[in-house]
Amino acid sequence: MTLFTLTHRSSETGARGGLLRLPHAAEPIPTPVFMPVGTRGTVKAMTQEEVAELGFQLILGNTYHLYLRPGHELIRKAGGLHKFIAWDGAMLTDSGGFQVFSLEELRKITEEGVKFKSHLDGSEHFFSPERSIEVQHALGADIIMAFDECPPYPCSEEATRQATERTHRWLERCTAYHAAQDTPQHLFGIAQGGVYEHLRAESAQFVASQNTPGIAIGGVSVGEPPELMQQAVGWSVPFLPPEKPRYLMGVGTPRDLLDAVGQGIDMFDCVLPTRLGRNGTFYTTRGRINIKGSRYTEDFGPVDPNCSCRVCARYSAAYLRHLYKCDEILASRLTTYHNLAHYAQLMANIRSAIAADRYEAFRRETMAMYAGEEAA
Amino acid sequence: MTLFTLTHRSSETGARGGLLRLPHAAEPIPTPVFMPVGTRGTVKAMTQEEVAELGFQLILGNTYHLYLRPGHELIRKAGGLHKFIAWDGAMLTDSGGFQVFSLEELRKITEEGVKFKSHLDGSEHFFSPERSIEVQHALGADIIMAFDECPPYPCSEEATRQATERTHRWLERCTAYHAAQDTPQHLFGIAQGGVYEHLRAESAQFVASQNTPGIAIGGVSVGEPPELMQQAVGWSVPFLPPEKPRYLMGVGTPRDLLDAVGQGIDMFDCVLPTRLGRNGTFYTTRGRINIKGSRYTEDFGPVDPNCSCRVCARYSAAYLRHLYKCDEILASRLTTYHNLAHYAQLMANIRSAIAADRYEAFRRETMAMYAGEEAA
Repeated sequence: MTLFTLTHRSSETGARGGLLRLPHAAEPIPTPVFMPVGTRGTVKAMTQEEVAELGFQLILGNTYHLYLRPGHELIRKAGGLHKFIAWDGAMLTDSGGFQVFSLEELRKITEEGVKFKSHLDGSEHFFSPERSIEVQHALGADIIMAFDECPPYPCSEEATRQATERTHRWLERCTAYHAAQDTPQHLFGIAQGGVYEHLRAESAQFVASQNTPGIAIGGVSVGEPPELMQQAVGWSVPFLPPEKPRYLMGVGTPRDLLDAVGQGIDMFDCVLPTRLGRNGTFYTTRGRINIKGSRYTEDFGPVDPNCSCRVCARYSAAYLRHLYKCDEILASRLTTYHNLAHYAQLMANIRSAIAADRYEAFRRETMAMYAGEEAA
Repeated sequence: MTLFTLTHRSSETGARGGLLRLPHAAEPIPTPVFMPVGTRGTVKAMTQEEVAELGFQLILGNTYHLYLRPGHELIRKAGGLHKFIAWDGAMLTDSGGFQVFSLEELRKITEEGVKFKSHLDGSEHFFSPERSIEVQHALGADIIMAFDECPPYPCSEEATRQATERTHRWLERCTAYHAAQDTPQHLFGIAQGGVYEHLRAESAQFVASQNTPGIAIGGVSVGEPPELMQQAVGWSVPFLPPEKPRYLMGVGTPRDLLDAVGQGIDMFDCVLPTRLGRNGTFYTTRGRINIKGSRYTEDFGPVDPNCSCRVCARYSAAYLRHLYKCDEILASRLTTYHNLAHYAQLMANIRSAIAADRYEAFRRETMAMYAGEEAA
């Protein structure tokens, strides 16, 4: 089974259309694709039925969180993460690296790996490249990620160089450990390099040389200035083999996705549509809005009149505002559902525009559309 | 349109089957019926689609909560509560009396009505029988309830007598105010009487004499000993006209429902399946269980193997336990859904047993079934 097939290339931009074939996906998954984040084995506030109904066939799980709770050995006993959470589609797990490095006060890094304390109970644990892959084998996702060192932002050039070079050595250990096991899982390497052009270029070249079936660009976090994300992608992509899927980790806003697709990215994941949904923020075709605003008190129409999702078809902005004001669970549910529907529709529109070879015009139109209400 | 038609009478018990016809229900609603509670315009954690899918055509809204938030005038502007929350079925609103009387420190009762402070912001409000009906007219539910005085439990005989007699005077004011308005809503009277047989009998007789289209038995709260509920029902029902629907407010557990149906009750509402659902408690065919228990850690089967609901068909006890341990929204969703499915199935079984004139045998079998795991 070929993991990835390119089906379209934009003549004006770097945008590409493709098909991703994964063991647990019944159908090839069209790219560019957005993966909802299911940190602890649930895309927050959604059922698996709803995630599938929205058209998503590939979701993300977090190795660090699942390793701590309920534990990868329990998930192995259940028959893997797909079975444990009753998800009929494909999955990707991260390596746990990003979470472990975020623990700052609670971790100690050596060449061997990272010793860390659980944020839940303070218990001591150790992740190495081999251990991360071992845990990800137990979880059994279709795509697994190499254990990388994620330098914080901001980070000096020297510290970024050291982290990036360690990431390369760790990638070699991950691929060696993975190759020795019999598993249908695809291990992706991660290119780092921080905010330094030559380090991004070197890292992309190194990871490309390791011949993993897909390549991720890491170290671009939510909250950084969007220019940094665009720069990191722009400095890395030229060195990535065109025939392999490219995954920009942790990105992003709808505008970020439009930019990065234009630079040749195929896969994305981000907590924004789910996390902001729980805050009352709706992504709409007019930009982001917060439903708690008093302007929605008597707005008996849908939150987004241009949206065809089940929430916009049935419930009013005034009702959703009421649910938020009362802190009702249904508020988080309906907003998350709508936001994921918005992302699913955006990705479908992106793929159509690429197929019609009008991606750049589409990108400009959509950026202008988003600009509408956000400034209001 | 006839509100209520009796279709079956049990030959051994007081149980009855019937049909309730309500303006917003597309089909006659078979009784005995259980109404899920949608306190603030949402059956907690459920969408309206899910409540309907579970077979419920009649849900309850709370006048006190909706009066404070979002306000009955806003709901009137939206076209009534059905439209505001996008509910396609029928609704019943309580009078606000129970909540207002629960405010203890924040309310002052006179013959005219109750002055109270909002539990949200301390603002001052006044509910009289007329005001309660006025607010309920704005909400627009199919069935509305008289404003009654709910004595606390325990309560002396003299205080109970005074509250019960005031409830009767207030019922006369409610019916007079309601009769002067042109509305298709059905106003039900509420019989009180506390834990005193002669007061229950007197109150049931008085309310029956007022000729409201349905009659409720009030003052039986969650948390009281179940014998008190059975006594209150047993002392009241003999004085209620058989051709009118009888509603036992705020009841109850599955066992309570089985008992009260046998005494001739037709309608119920209770927060238990939704509230306990958010706590990790499942109602199952083996009794109540709490999913947080360590015995479910590696239970990869359904929570209730005898249940055909969507949750039991797809998700395992071990996964549900994990979701609770992580305090995920999906935990509350799935448990609430299952518990409502359990109640819906119980009521369907009750109605079938009444139709087959084997209610007493069914009641005994079901009680024995529930006894299974609860003691374990």
